[in-house]
Amino acid sequence: MKTGEKLYEGKAKILYATDDAQQVIQYFKDDATAFNAQKRGTIGEKGVVNNKIAAHIFEMLEGLGIKTHFIKLLSDREMLVRKVTILPLEVTMRNIVAGGMAKLLGLEEGIHLKDPVFEYHYKRDDLGDPLITEYHIRALGIATDGDLAFIERQSFAINRILSAFFAERGLELVDFKLEFGKDQGGRILLADEISPDTCRLWEVGTGRKLDKDRFRRDLGDVESAYQEVLRRVLAEPSAKAATS
Amino acid sequence: MKTGEKLYEGKAKILYATDDAQQVIQYFKDDATAFNAQKRGTIGEKGVVNNKIAAHIFEMLEGLGIKTHFIKLLSDREMLVRKVTILPLEVTMRNIVAGGMAKLLGLEEGIHLKDPVFEYHYKRDDLGDPLITEYHIRALGIATDGDLAFIERQSFAINRILSAFFAERGLELVDFKLEFGKDQGGRILLADEISPDTCRLWEVGTGRKLDKDRFRRDLGDVESAYQEVLRRVLAEPSAKAATS
Repeated sequence: MKTGEKLYEGKAKILYATDDAQQVIQYFKDDATAFNAQKRGTIGEKGVVNNKIAAHIFEMLEGLGIKTHFIKLLSDREMLVRKVTILPLEVTMRNIVAGGMAKLLGLEEGIHLKDPVFEYHYKRDDLGDPLITEYHIRALGIATDGDLAFIERQSFAINRILSAFFAERGLELVDFKLEFGKDQGGRILLADEISPDTCRLWEVGTGRKLDKDRFRRDLGDVESAYQEVLRRVLAEPSAKAATS
Repeated sequence: MKTGEKLYEGKAKILYATDDAQQVIQYFKDDATAFNAQKRGTIGEKGVVNNKIAAHIFEMLEGLGIKTHFIKLLSDREMLVRKVTILPLEVTMRNIVAGGMAKLLGLEEGIHLKDPVFEYHYKRDDLGDPLITEYHIRALGIATDGDLAFIERQSFAINRILSAFFAERGLELVDFKLEFGKDQGGRILLADEISPDTCRLWEVGTGRKLDKDRFRRDLGDVESAYQEVLRRVLAEPSAKAATS
């Protein structure tokens, strides 16, 4: 696959054109940002680790009927994906109170939610990616009611799949962020990535954080946490971890 | 009606007990606050004006089938209301982009919305009354799904009634805030007040603001704007204003 012109450079990834108008290369960088890019740094080998984690998870989701932009792994830092127009929405699914939800509602981190909490955020760095509702999305003309119903159903399905997947690997899926895009046929596909950059993952038993909060909160051992998640994602689920 | 002990003092109103356990007196102050009470002042005779406006509007809404806490006017600054437990939610209904919605989404004020925008805010001064969704409300245990469906339906009905009511009086209802409470029988009633403190009202034709934004934004003529709204609320709708 020939790498063409740079189409987009984000905080953690770059998209390059290919000779197929419907396919692009997603390149994973080591750059890390937090708090709306007020904190910047790099996490050694993050791009390699996240590319592999995301590829494995996208394949697993596709196998269970979730349509994603993933086509195949190309190299350590590159995956081939379907070209989509990203909806300017970040979907957050939450199983345990942490991060933005703790701050928003004045709650302690760590409270297990009886039912998952589903949130839309408006993907606008200049506005701080604010929490919004379907009413705002309709007012902005971002998506149709049908699109939103589909995205919400998919997000809950993905949460059920990922929660079980990580639980079998001794990790609690606290919350995660999803992005969706529309392909040229108007189909909505899960896009972006799924990795310790976009998921909060706490080790079952110890509560040890194995995600980007180690970078955000200067907890140290950032690289090894990402490597540990990759190791577990690629491992066959152990009976011990699954039942612990 | 004998005034009993003070039950609650808010930024603009005081609630007093009466000799009937199910009824309280709502007393309207002249105090005004804005930006989560960072700005404080008084608006001369606001208490008298808002008491009369709210009483008139509550009576009008009751006549159209909306259940409210209002029982009767007692004096210039006092109304008798049903005792309710206020839900810690502020409902905002928006017909035109202004204030918080303009800031949230980076939009210009004055855009007419194709469909009204309905918002819940968590009534928590210490958190800045943040925008929240039904998922957060469920997680907090504030209200049942049935309560929320009822509140949403009522809010849209109230918006239709109030928009027509103000239009007939030459005023555009830009947006407004509602609070609901539960009485001892578990019925949800519209509570608090409806006044230029809680509604944005723009004069049809001129766009002149006749609401609390005159105080918030130091536009001057605050008292006379409130008096003008009272005059129009009490006036019979003029054919001219209704069709202008």
